[in-house]
Amino acid sequence: MREPAELRVIPVLGLPEFSVGMRVGEQIAAHTELLDGDVVACSQKIVSKAEGRIRRLSSAIPGSEARRLAALLGKEPALIELILAESREVLRAERGVLITETHHGFVCANAGVDSSNLPEAETVSLLPEDPDASARRIRAEVRDATGKTVAVVVSDSFGRAWRLGQAEVAIGCAGIEPLDDWRGRHDSGGRELEATLIAIADQVAAAADLVRDKASGVPAAIVRGLERFTSEDDGPGATALRRPRDEDLFR
Amino acid sequence: MREPAELRVIPVLGLPEFSVGMRVGEQIAAHTELLDGDVVACSQKIVSKAEGRIRRLSSAIPGSEARRLAALLGKEPALIELILAESREVLRAERGVLITETHHGFVCANAGVDSSNLPEAETVSLLPEDPDASARRIRAEVRDATGKTVAVVVSDSFGRAWRLGQAEVAIGCAGIEPLDDWRGRHDSGGRELEATLIAIADQVAAAADLVRDKASGVPAAIVRGLERFTSEDDGPGATALRRPRDEDLFR
Repeated sequence: MREPAELRVIPVLGLPEFSVGMRVGEQIAAHTELLDGDVVACSQKIVSKAEGRIRRLSSAIPGSEARRLAALLGKEPALIELILAESREVLRAERGVLITETHHGFVCANAGVDSSNLPEAETVSLLPEDPDASARRIRAEVRDATGKTVAVVVSDSFGRAWRLGQAEVAIGCAGIEPLDDWRGRHDSGGRELEATLIAIADQVAAAADLVRDKASGVPAAIVRGLERFTSEDDGPGATALRRPRDEDLFR
Repeated sequence: MREPAELRVIPVLGLPEFSVGMRVGEQIAAHTELLDGDVVACSQKIVSKAEGRIRRLSSAIPGSEARRLAALLGKEPALIELILAESREVLRAERGVLITETHHGFVCANAGVDSSNLPEAETVSLLPEDPDASARRIRAEVRDATGKTVAVVVSDSFGRAWRLGQAEVAIGCAGIEPLDDWRGRHDSGGRELEATLIAIADQVAAAADLVRDKASGVPAAIVRGLERFTSEDDGPGATALRRPRDEDLFR
């Protein structure tokens, strides 16, 4: 393998407010100069807006389970109803925290339902229905607009079981290896490596988050210098990052 | 807050093999040009080597608990003994996986005890005894060698409960805010932000990992452009990233 090169993480400035039907890939391409092999990292929020995944709280009619959990957690019943509709299983509901597995198979707080950075009050954003498909579409939009082959990571900030603070992770990706598999490779001393499977797409999401600003609306960044992890084909997507249920030791 | 600037992540090439007593900060300063405000991210492994935190497997005399777990997990009893000595609690021991809480309070596989990238066979590295103190010392060494004020992150790769692959996290830091606290701040629409506490030091560790190479010996990187998170004082360290036991929903 060749020597690792320097990485650049470049915020995409001046993006417009997104609304349903807008093309995220086209807008990003119009606001920054992209090169072949760049990774475009964008926040779930703008993808959800472009895909119309915004809901009014008043659109939800809370069922009995939502009302029960809302009382337990001190949250709005309509919000809980929307979260449950996005979930296939509730893992924890205590101390004001609701942790579920989404229909995609991601374990996170509130099924990724979020009310910040939305133009209208009393609305929330849901995660994209199929974030890997979103990433593939954004990738195709960039190719159509510029002729460049980039990779795309769609990300959201997830809490962690044993660490404080949220870290950005990939919920969708295309054109990048989500996992770098070192199993069977050897270290400089010829010994088998202990760290065997590196979550590249999650680390890209985290790196991009360092140049974003959750208040001022910098929802996308370019990560340049990761060509060794990018590919012509779309690849397995971020679904490959979900731990299979039968390997889960903490449910 | 000013507009986010571009970030650069620069691998530190040509570092020597570390052994006990060597100064990590001095070596990094000698192998790259550092600027005030840079963040120096380095792998736990070189810090452990410099601090003499390497053990021969033959140094451990497995007790009954180590022998029991070794049989259960199909691992070497001496290795399990060393892991237990680094742990204050075993969280899970099944399917070949041993997850413990270290004496520092980090929850990870094998208490961070690791056998890759070590010069001698039948040895393992333990995590630094006090990784925040390690980060402070490396910071002081850089200052002594160059007069520059940098921040330092000492990192290791941890698995995650519900995601495949390992991601690099901060186990020690100095001169950088481990957490960026947005509680009470507002989004561009004046609404309170949902993502309230961002694990900056973990995201720095992840970004740095993208230019490291676990096989070829690039154990350190410089992250440039994070001046807004760095500070003159050493700050709270990565101990601030541990989730307090009484907030843990998954033990």
